[in-house]
Amino acid sequence: MDRRKIRWNGWGWNEAHDELSGRAELWTWLARELGMPTLLATPARELKDIALPKSRLRDEERTAFINMLGAEQVRSDDYERAFHALGRSYHDVLRMRAGDLTTAPDLVLYARNQADVLAVLAYASERGIAVVPFGGGTSVVGGVTAGHGNFGAVVTLDISKMDRVLDVDRISMTAEVEAGIYGPALEKALQAQGLTLGHYPQSFEFSTLGGWIAHAGAGQQSNRYGRSSDWIVSATLATPRGVLATDNHPASAAGPRLKDMILGSEGAFGVITQARVRIHEAPAKKVYTGFLFKDFQSGAEAIRTAVREDVPSAMLRVSDADETRVYRTMADIGKPHGLKATLTERFLALRGLDVAPAALIAGFEGDADEVAEALKHFDKIAKRLGALSVGQSMGKRWYEGRFHGPYMRDPMMDRGVGVDTLETSTSWSNIPKLHRAVTTALHTAIAETAPRPGARGIVMGHISHSYPDGASLYFTYIFPRQLDGEVAQWRKIKKAASDAIAANGGTISHHHGVGEDHLPWIAQEKGELGIAVLRAIKHTLDPKGILNPGKLIPD
Amino acid sequence: MDRRKIRWNGWGWNEAHDELSGRAELWTWLARELGMPTLLATPARELKDIALPKSRLRDEERTAFINMLGAEQVRSDDYERAFHALGRSYHDVLRMRAGDLTTAPDLVLYARNQADVLAVLAYASERGIAVVPFGGGTSVVGGVTAGHGNFGAVVTLDISKMDRVLDVDRISMTAEVEAGIYGPALEKALQAQGLTLGHYPQSFEFSTLGGWIAHAGAGQQSNRYGRSSDWIVSATLATPRGVLATDNHPASAAGPRLKDMILGSEGAFGVITQARVRIHEAPAKKVYTGFLFKDFQSGAEAIRTAVREDVPSAMLRVSDADETRVYRTMADIGKPHGLKATLTERFLALRGLDVAPAALIAGFEGDADEVAEALKHFDKIAKRLGALSVGQSMGKRWYEGRFHGPYMRDPMMDRGVGVDTLETSTSWSNIPKLHRAVTTALHTAIAETAPRPGARGIVMGHISHSYPDGASLYFTYIFPRQLDGEVAQWRKIKKAASDAIAANGGTISHHHGVGEDHLPWIAQEKGELGIAVLRAIKHTLDPKGILNPGKLIPD
Repeated sequence: MDRRKIRWNGWGWNEAHDELSGRAELWTWLARELGMPTLLATPARELKDIALPKSRLRDEERTAFINMLGAEQVRSDDYERAFHALGRSYHDVLRMRAGDLTTAPDLVLYARNQADVLAVLAYASERGIAVVPFGGGTSVVGGVTAGHGNFGAVVTLDISKMDRVLDVDRISMTAEVEAGIYGPALEKALQAQGLTLGHYPQSFEFSTLGGWIAHAGAGQQSNRYGRSSDWIVSATLATPRGVLATDNHPASAAGPRLKDMILGSEGAFGVITQARVRIHEAPAKKVYTGFLFKDFQSGAEAIRTAVREDVPSAMLRVSDADETRVYRTMADIGKPHGLKATLTERFLALRGLDVAPAALIAGFEGDADEVAEALKHFDKIAKRLGALSVGQSMGKRWYEGRFHGPYMRDPMMDRGVGVDTLETSTSWSNIPKLHRAVTTALHTAIAETAPRPGARGIVMGHISHSYPDGASLYFTYIFPRQLDGEVAQWRKIKKAASDAIAANGGTISHHHGVGEDHLPWIAQEKGELGIAVLRAIKHTLDPKGILNPGKLIPD
Repeated sequence: MDRRKIRWNGWGWNEAHDELSGRAELWTWLARELGMPTLLATPARELKDIALPKSRLRDEERTAFINMLGAEQVRSDDYERAFHALGRSYHDVLRMRAGDLTTAPDLVLYARNQADVLAVLAYASERGIAVVPFGGGTSVVGGVTAGHGNFGAVVTLDISKMDRVLDVDRISMTAEVEAGIYGPALEKALQAQGLTLGHYPQSFEFSTLGGWIAHAGAGQQSNRYGRSSDWIVSATLATPRGVLATDNHPASAAGPRLKDMILGSEGAFGVITQARVRIHEAPAKKVYTGFLFKDFQSGAEAIRTAVREDVPSAMLRVSDADETRVYRTMADIGKPHGLKATLTERFLALRGLDVAPAALIAGFEGDADEVAEALKHFDKIAKRLGALSVGQSMGKRWYEGRFHGPYMRDPMMDRGVGVDTLETSTSWSNIPKLHRAVTTALHTAIAETAPRPGARGIVMGHISHSYPDGASLYFTYIFPRQLDGEVAQWRKIKKAASDAIAANGGTISHHHGVGEDHLPWIAQEKGELGIAVLRAIKHTLDPKGILNPGKLIPD
């Protein structure tokens, strides 16, 4: 992966086509939605104009790392330091765009293998140098900020060169893989053998296996392929005290399973160097199709029923009325809108689907028979609940754009508009209450922090991951930025939403992780004793506390 | 549950019908199989003839517990102390039958609620009294031995009076239940509402919800209803430092999940007082049916294929050739054996199924259509692998006798015959090697510890739980006892099998747990650092180390 081809201060490929900027009608509409007379020009600062802080490492330390890893693996140029300064959270992007690179690591180290990782950790632990483990760096919760904590200096330890598939066991359908492998490289290697892991988070292009495990994440097709907690068989964690390699049995009653303590450990317990994962035959068939429900709750009920009736879906994703409306507008605005669209509107009105319609994308993967059967089953459930099947073009559009969401942020940021996301999960019985509470909290906080009276936000929600006992809730919110207090504005909105989540039975994260951004809420979720347990684990594996300071566990 | 109706020194109801003792031909056959001229009479000692050790508790401590819980909850009579002295492992039964009750607790305490548990733990921690948490007491790995460790005294804390279903959420299909509830009471309460947890371990009649979680166990129908690690939503752990209540979200990325540290904690971290569990509609239909495969490996392949093809089974269980032969003989011997049986034998020979046949029981539960579909699918897989469908009478026999296995031990113990079980799991690719290695180790160790030259054991194996990447292996071994060194004989056999498991890629326990019996192998499975992590968790929750000393974690 050539990181020079990736935006250091935003999302995605430098060369990616910007499909939003040329669409004037879209921006006019957005300004109106946000209650703003017009949008602004708020470009990001360029790297060449930003002075990076001087490295705090001593020469002898730098020399020691070079002797340990070779000069090529030890980087201190501005691009490498800037690239590794922060992750991709809204807070991170605000700082990068403003040229605030105070968290640039003092040195960037590339590990080629587990021995490299162990050597770095042992030395850093002895010298009291903070180490931030780094895979793809796409954390949206401040998980890779190169903070030096209480230490004099900080290095980022990048493991993206550890990217080999070490073993494929086709009988047991597992693979042992180095943790630094990027999503596309992993799938390419597996699919060449007709296999797949099937883990496709929205960050897929730029995130790594180790990161998926470290933050206990879920891919978009988790209904079929599972979350990382489902597909992980075993993991190897390199720590300042040596290697913790978990057992790799399919199931065990031999005490608490250590892989479960590595899941979600976010680089605070050690560096995940490799893992064994459950793999599948690559699906022969993928069908993604769309439905319109009269409201969000009916769509949620369809998903709950499908889970209850064991419909083998890959993904069931329902947007609330605002998300349905906004995505439809963003897709259509400024494009030819003729007779067909008018007829569609009339038809929807006839069906009672025009008041607060909720779009649902249902995805099925597997062999052709299985997919057909599952689709038929889900179609029956949807129709029983009064939904309209709108066919595969809507599903196909979603599928083709499934990694595009994050690319929309940069053009908005260039125009004084903020956009952030957050996610949670709760029991089925609590979904309506939590959805209402978070939506209201976001609207209120955005209005309260708006740059002018009458300005307001767009708040959109959807369910995209479902379980027997509940589901995820994902929120995207777009708001006019308070340019003279952007970080404070973000903090207030984030706090309002997070407080609403905590007070209404949600988890502080369904698949993004804790990082720095969710740290204020973690003690409430885990409890005092729970935090004490996590601290004890960290202290055992990282006695000096050098690993990823300021993340996961409150001081 | 009236514990006076349960055998204190063996398995099951006092009044249970002993179907083996009257069958002379069976015992003659067994003696021959074991290479013994005849079986012996080795009755157990009666409780009235056994002197229990004097309680080591001080009067003031006893008084404190009475003040805390009420006199009725504080028991020191011989039956209560004997019942709580040990679990139901082979080693436990050897000691109980010999009248060795040196591990009788100094006092038996019954908790009525979480406040009782917290009060006992706080006081015991302050005074340095060991506490052994106790649910049903059916551990077969020495999990409830009332050892006092380094402390002056030990109390057993029995939570079986904490047996209420606190809440049923039919929308989310979860239930919050107190941990001391016995299997039958839990299922009765749920099934009255058309619901089920579906967790039916062989110990179902006598084990409790808390125990199922504490040892991270699996029920016989785990393919459908999951292991405890699958159906646990959240748990509450009472510890000497207070309550650890885990979050109850359906999925979360907010750091490592604390419920995963309670799973398998075996009373060493705290006392599980209640849990939220995933429940199901009670199945309308259950079908259990039998197949004969030409050998164990073909049967295993059928199960692997069924898992790969997502056949929704409740249970797929295949016996190896020795288990198939022995169970068939034990079922038939001494019973009329006429023309029909002879014809069956001829038919099997014609089909090539007479050399090393392996019996497979396939169980399906759910609504009628789903069961029919799944059965058809599995039947197709089985036939593709050359199996003979032998129909539902074999399945029905298994189902009716599914809790009877442990009842066979006492009549054998009365006749100088030992019988023990052990279990493991491994990847599909490693199943054949591990099966061979353990079988060989058991045969060798039994021969080496036999009471006379030429005496030998019966070693039977089966797969009964399957996963995408592997399966369990369960072994039952019957052997002539070395009466002048019974514990040493058991230790040698156990060590040989456990060493073979550890050396050949198996876990030291698939669903029995660690307890005292598997302690010598746990460090190898978890690694030095892994053990350090478990110790750190224990030390955080139980700083004085009073909880269940000598189990789970090596000193």
